Amino acid sequence: MPRRPTFAAWLSDTNDVTQTFLSAGQIPGLINMAGGLPDPVTWPVGELAELARRAVAEHPGDALAYPPIEGLPALRDLIAARFSAPGLALTRENVLITTGGMQGLDLVGKVLLDEGQVIATQSPAYLGALDAWKPRRPTYRPMRLEAADFVAEPAFRGAQFAYAVPNFSNPTGRLVGLDQRRTLVAAAEATGTWLVEDDPYGTLHYDGAPLPRMLTLAGQNRAYDGPVIYLGTLSKELAPGLRVGWVIAAPEMIRAMVTAKQGSDMSTPGLSQRIALDAFASGLTERVLPATLTLYRARRDAVCRAMGEHLGDLYDWEVPSGGMFVWATARDPGLNTDRLLRVGLTHGVCITPSSVFDPEGRNRRAIRINFTLNDADRLAEGVVRLAAASKAVLAECLAPAN
Amino acid sequence: MPRRPTFAAWLSDTNDVTQTFLSAGQIPGLINMAGGLPDPVTWPVGELAELARRAVAEHPGDALAYPPIEGLPALRDLIAARFSAPGLALTRENVLITTGGMQGLDLVGKVLLDEGQVIATQSPAYLGALDAWKPRRPTYRPMRLEAADFVAEPAFRGAQFAYAVPNFSNPTGRLVGLDQRRTLVAAAEATGTWLVEDDPYGTLHYDGAPLPRMLTLAGQNRAYDGPVIYLGTLSKELAPGLRVGWVIAAPEMIRAMVTAKQGSDMSTPGLSQRIALDAFASGLTERVLPATLTLYRARRDAVCRAMGEHLGDLYDWEVPSGGMFVWATARDPGLNTDRLLRVGLTHGVCITPSSVFDPEGRNRRAIRINFTLNDADRLAEGVVRLAAASKAVLAECLAPAN
Repeated sequence: MPRRPTFAAWLSDTNDVTQTFLSAGQIPGLINMAGGLPDPVTWPVGELAELARRAVAEHPGDALAYPPIEGLPALRDLIAARFSAPGLALTRENVLITTGGMQGLDLVGKVLLDEGQVIATQSPAYLGALDAWKPRRPTYRPMRLEAADFVAEPAFRGAQFAYAVPNFSNPTGRLVGLDQRRTLVAAAEATGTWLVEDDPYGTLHYDGAPLPRMLTLAGQNRAYDGPVIYLGTLSKELAPGLRVGWVIAAPEMIRAMVTAKQGSDMSTPGLSQRIALDAFASGLTERVLPATLTLYRARRDAVCRAMGEHLGDLYDWEVPSGGMFVWATARDPGLNTDRLLRVGLTHGVCITPSSVFDPEGRNRRAIRINFTLNDADRLAEGVVRLAAASKAVLAECLAPAN
Repeated sequence: MPRRPTFAAWLSDTNDVTQTFLSAGQIPGLINMAGGLPDPVTWPVGELAELARRAVAEHPGDALAYPPIEGLPALRDLIAARFSAPGLALTRENVLITTGGMQGLDLVGKVLLDEGQVIATQSPAYLGALDAWKPRRPTYRPMRLEAADFVAEPAFRGAQFAYAVPNFSNPTGRLVGLDQRRTLVAAAEATGTWLVEDDPYGTLHYDGAPLPRMLTLAGQNRAYDGPVIYLGTLSKELAPGLRVGWVIAAPEMIRAMVTAKQGSDMSTPGLSQRIALDAFASGLTERVLPATLTLYRARRDAVCRAMGEHLGDLYDWEVPSGGMFVWATARDPGLNTDRLLRVGLTHGVCITPSSVFDPEGRNRRAIRINFTLNDADRLAEGVVRLAAASKAVLAECLAPAN
């Protein structure tokens, strides 16, 4: 048989971590603390079933026809109203509906990146964002926002865009403070560089009140035309399977993304959009949220308590005030967390190693632990297994190489 | 304000035809023969509403959780079984569920194209395919399949893939015959080049029996690993707003596309997938089809009758045996159809000019007329308006330039 054409060059830069995760799904009794999955008990199944029926029966034009590329006008209007704030005037022209938050990241890459251009990214960074931009083989300029000597303007200058997850970052769970949010927005305004505010976890805050969005801080008391590109999603607020997200940005950015979305999937399913519209408009998302927060707050507390008991000698971490993850850094640099992923599987626990979140692929010393999917007992048992697996990896380091 | 970074280079290659279409939507009384839209009367709204309710209520794990990137296993199995044929053995590993047929085209580009590489395409070609691949700025090698001297192998050789819509091609409505299907498959096998068979219209046949798919012709009496990448969609068979499509291809191609899809939208909405599964499994698609075919066949006949009466002196065309479009070529090369689009709007009719379907952007002598959206009376009135607009464009040619 003649040789087939080679795949596009970016596909050769893959790691086998994803494959390891997939195979992990087959292990019986495994405690999965690797993903970013919600607990299905948080879904209002009965109400969503009725919304789904009514979406088709009463709004077949919305649910079954090709929706406008930009999204259903009523949903765009609702998102614009929902995210407007004093000083921030949003209209339909600022909003694009996407197929999940992930598509927002894909479209950012499609409209802003030519091969090899620079992205200034909060580091460690969301794996999905790195995946989305990989086809353009960008150059990363990592920003360690927590470093005392971090200065935003030089990091932003010359980058096509800067990327941050200010609310309970994936993977670190870190909350970017108000002063630093202002600093990042000011750097975007001073340099002209776009600032992507990826905010899937903004509603999942367990302690205290939410901080203003960078989008809001970039409001100008006139029709919004600022540098912040805000990415939102229904996945954490309601249910991920609907795949509804949204981009809020300057109209010129929305128009460019509409061109890119047309050639990506034409439009986001109208049925999902109509359900999202009705779920927001009927207050369903607000009614569901308190129980979700109570559940996840207790699990956050449970996993951190268990970590204190079993992992205190091995790792350092901060208790996150929201989101889905605890980020733990091994005290011993010999605790290679790529290896821990594999050894963990033999102990019946799965975590995500830091290497996949490092734009430069070097950090092998930390892990991301999810606490939203499993109940307190499973979390505690998972931490016990993780402690045993970590000790096993450390023991390997000391053993003579074979 | 400092200058913002420029958009990616491919965004500068745009034409204003899409913008013209969008503004056309605002014209009262306009007869839209431009798009590729189904008539909403063909949708089984009541049955789909009930399927939507049951999808959420009875299968919340399918409808509301993150679906697997590849798609729901049961839907992949169903598609594999549905498209298997004597000599063609398909399994789940050959199937990827996509967000509409359009995403299949996007993924083909993402996994196969580095900047500037060669695509051998049936020409004229589907505008959406050209849009999907534009970010990679490919080089097109047009294939005029209807030309007497067309030879497939030299066209395929060195191309990353060849692209064809064998059933009632968009835009020409042309059916690629069985011999030529065999020739294209043989060329793919001889050269190693992938062959993309885009088949949104395969079920919309109005005369005679459907021809075998190129996918089937590439079957090898063993687990499918052939060069044909088949793209299907629910949009014409049931309803476009669900945005469910599928790719059937060799497992190595499916695996590469899964990597690309993960960074594109993570997965296709589970609710849409579950509805598609139940619609296929319950025979709903088959029950709906006969009425759709009767309706569209009558409209095809109506538009061609009106064209015979009013456009016979101005254009040549063939009566299509399926699909959604008639392709008409002006007898007078002076009848610039880009101009006709604009003049048509002032006459209350909208068609699609040939330039947008020409990979090289040169053909300004033909038009694509849709006959599925409007009833027979509207189609006839649209053709009358089109005749008047065409004569007006020809009269402009003869008038002295100002």
